[in-house]
Amino acid sequence: MKFNNRNIELGSNVQLGKNVRIGDNTIIYDNVVIGDDAIISNNCIIGEPLNAYYHEPSYVNPLLSIGSNSLIRSHTIIYAGSEFGPYFQTGHHVTIRENTKAGSHCSFGSYNDIQGNCEIGNFCRFQSFVNIGQQSVIKDFVFIYPYVVLTNDPTPPSENIKGVFIDAYAQVGAGTTVLPGIKIGKHALVGAATTLDIDLNDYQFATGAPAKLIGDVRKMPFFTDNQRHYPWPRNFSRGMPWQESGYEKWLAEQPNH
Amino acid sequence: MKFNNRNIELGSNVQLGKNVRIGDNTIIYDNVVIGDDAIISNNCIIGEPLNAYYHEPSYVNPLLSIGSNSLIRSHTIIYAGSEFGPYFQTGHHVTIRENTKAGSHCSFGSYNDIQGNCEIGNFCRFQSFVNIGQQSVIKDFVFIYPYVVLTNDPTPPSENIKGVFIDAYAQVGAGTTVLPGIKIGKHALVGAATTLDIDLNDYQFATGAPAKLIGDVRKMPFFTDNQRHYPWPRNFSRGMPWQESGYEKWLAEQPNH
Amino acid sequence: MKFNNRNIELGSNVQLGKNVRIGDNTIIYDNVVIGDDAIISNNCIIGEPLNAYYHEPSYVNPLLSIGSNSLIRSHTIIYAGSEFGPYFQTGHHVTIRENTKAGSHCSFGSYNDIQGNCEIGNFCRFQSFVNIGQQSVIKDFVFIYPYVVLTNDPTPPSENIKGVFIDAYAQVGAGTTVLPGIKIGKHALVGAATTLDIDLNDYQFATGAPAKLIGDVRKMPFFTDNQRHYPWPRNFSRGMPWQESGYEKWLAEQPNH
Repeated sequence: MKFNNRNIELGSNVQLGKNVRIGDNTIIYDNVVIGDDAIISNNCIIGEPLNAYYHEPSYVNPLLSIGSNSLIRSHTIIYAGSEFGPYFQTGHHVTIRENTKAGSHCSFGSYNDIQGNCEIGNFCRFQSFVNIGQQSVIKDFVFIYPYVVLTNDPTPPSENIKGVFIDAYAQVGAGTTVLPGIKIGKHALVGAATTLDIDLNDYQFATGAPAKLIGDVRKMPFFTDNQRHYPWPRNFSRGMPWQESGYEKWLAEQPNH
Repeated sequence: MKFNNRNIELGSNVQLGKNVRIGDNTIIYDNVVIGDDAIISNNCIIGEPLNAYYHEPSYVNPLLSIGSNSLIRSHTIIYAGSEFGPYFQTGHHVTIRENTKAGSHCSFGSYNDIQGNCEIGNFCRFQSFVNIGQQSVIKDFVFIYPYVVLTNDPTPPSENIKGVFIDAYAQVGAGTTVLPGIKIGKHALVGAATTLDIDLNDYQFATGAPAKLIGDVRKMPFFTDNQRHYPWPRNFSRGMPWQESGYEKWLAEQPNH
Repeated sequence: MKFNNRNIELGSNVQLGKNVRIGDNTIIYDNVVIGDDAIISNNCIIGEPLNAYYHEPSYVNPLLSIGSNSLIRSHTIIYAGSEFGPYFQTGHHVTIRENTKAGSHCSFGSYNDIQGNCEIGNFCRFQSFVNIGQQSVIKDFVFIYPYVVLTNDPTPPSENIKGVFIDAYAQVGAGTTVLPGIKIGKHALVGAATTLDIDLNDYQFATGAPAKLIGDVRKMPFFTDNQRHYPWPRNFSRGMPWQESGYEKWLAEQPNH
């Protein structure tokens, strides 16, 4: 019963690459481009129209581009007007609004709610129930764990939006609320269930509600006796570009290193 | 490809107003009334039957009423036996159980889980991932931010349910847990990631885990230098009934002011 | 309009018991066994294939077994390779991954995200938005309230997974983050919005962020004046096996008491 194109609806100007497979009961609206070898699974809505669709007769769906080799799991909704690089993955029941730009090899877990108007780098991994507010900027190799919310309104309700910035290799622990406009440095670590109301420099570790600075991740063995885990790329490589070569060798080969 | 009635299932005694549009793969069960110019988008279930439906042969679906000009976004499930005023909106993947009553111009964000047996006023806005326990009572113009849960059982598990009460113009920040039976006054503000185990009087601001009273919202500039943001209706009007006239003028014209 | 088999897709080797009813737009993949009198509601995906399905031509879906009298509510996704006892229930929009084993009479609320590779006992009740990490072990009669996450990686990101263990009759309050490898004893109680970074012995009560031990649940009236609520089975029996006889009588009759 593999991909028999049952109850699929395709809009106009839908450009499917080679070997794209589409699951049952999936709807793809106008002006969607899907790269080679991508899979859109069952019950998805791809290119969901923006609000103007419902009342403007001249509405034209903005372009949505999903890279090659992507895997969009079932019951995912992706709005028109966004761009995702190759090897993009979603879990189930994901919602991604317009003007989201993500690089290659990103993975957004089940029940992620990406509010749009945000920039996400390459090789980012968000686990389940991650809520990314508008104007968030997230660089490469960032890990975000379940039930994290990146807020953006310092004086609610208002139009005065200040997004969160998370630099490369940083991690945000489960159950954390990040306050509007907070900046998190490279390789920084936010512990679980933190209320992050302070900026973190590169390599800083903070945790607590409200957050307290604990120290430098490079100096702390944390939960593993006598063995330093951070910077984490030395110890974790599954799915990362340094999986074959190791992190130090890979890093030395990067052009802007 | 706008609203072509593809794979729609309508029960008996479904009353659709003028110009109601229904998306693909949507199911509407018996005894549902939808007002003029409303839109029910794709993959929704409207009038979801109560549990008795599965085992009582004489089951009759209680009435569900959705007001005119409402917009129910895709993958939303609304149980039978509820009532929503005009200009009601939902995000995606919303679930609303029976005996929910909401006024006009309410907006329930994506992944809202409204447990039923609750009353919600007019012009309330819930962002994503808001969980409203049974017996909650929420008045007009209340804003609730992501990952807020209104609990209701002080001695779990029990049948001794005590709902949360939130008065008009109050706001509850992201990631907040409100304990059973708590009362939040008019224009009160609950900061992000608060564990709210105390009642708040009108205009009080509290934050922290557990909550601490910080002060009166009218006296505090908070995050904007030398400019007072609260009461917020003076500074925010998008979609509110005072959008044209301004809050003070609108308020003076209200009959019960 | 009760269960008319509209737009249903059944894979090969799907074994349906007597009087199984399947809702509209539901897909059941290969090698699924569903017990007598079970109901699978609308828009579900049952036996969702594992990742190898997408690229291994010889992929065979592992067996999924759902017990008799189960009720799987709409928009639920259950992966292949799991086993659920009789009287299993899910809410809406649930996701359950492979290698999940749950006993009889379990109930997983709406938006539960069960990550797989976990063991769950009998008569467990999870409310909405519960996130169960891999390697979690949960015994009988455990109650978990909304927005609880059981984490499992003490040094993220890593492959060094340490699941949470929750013993029988324990309860975990709303908004709680449980850290990796934590053990919660029998009849223990975790208050709402707790960051649980300590193990709890049987009957201990802890709350706070970070958690503090408060005392023994058997000695504390908590929120009910002059009346002890715990151990809770003496005061709560709805849907429990002691509903007819009372807890003490039922307990005395258990073989391993």
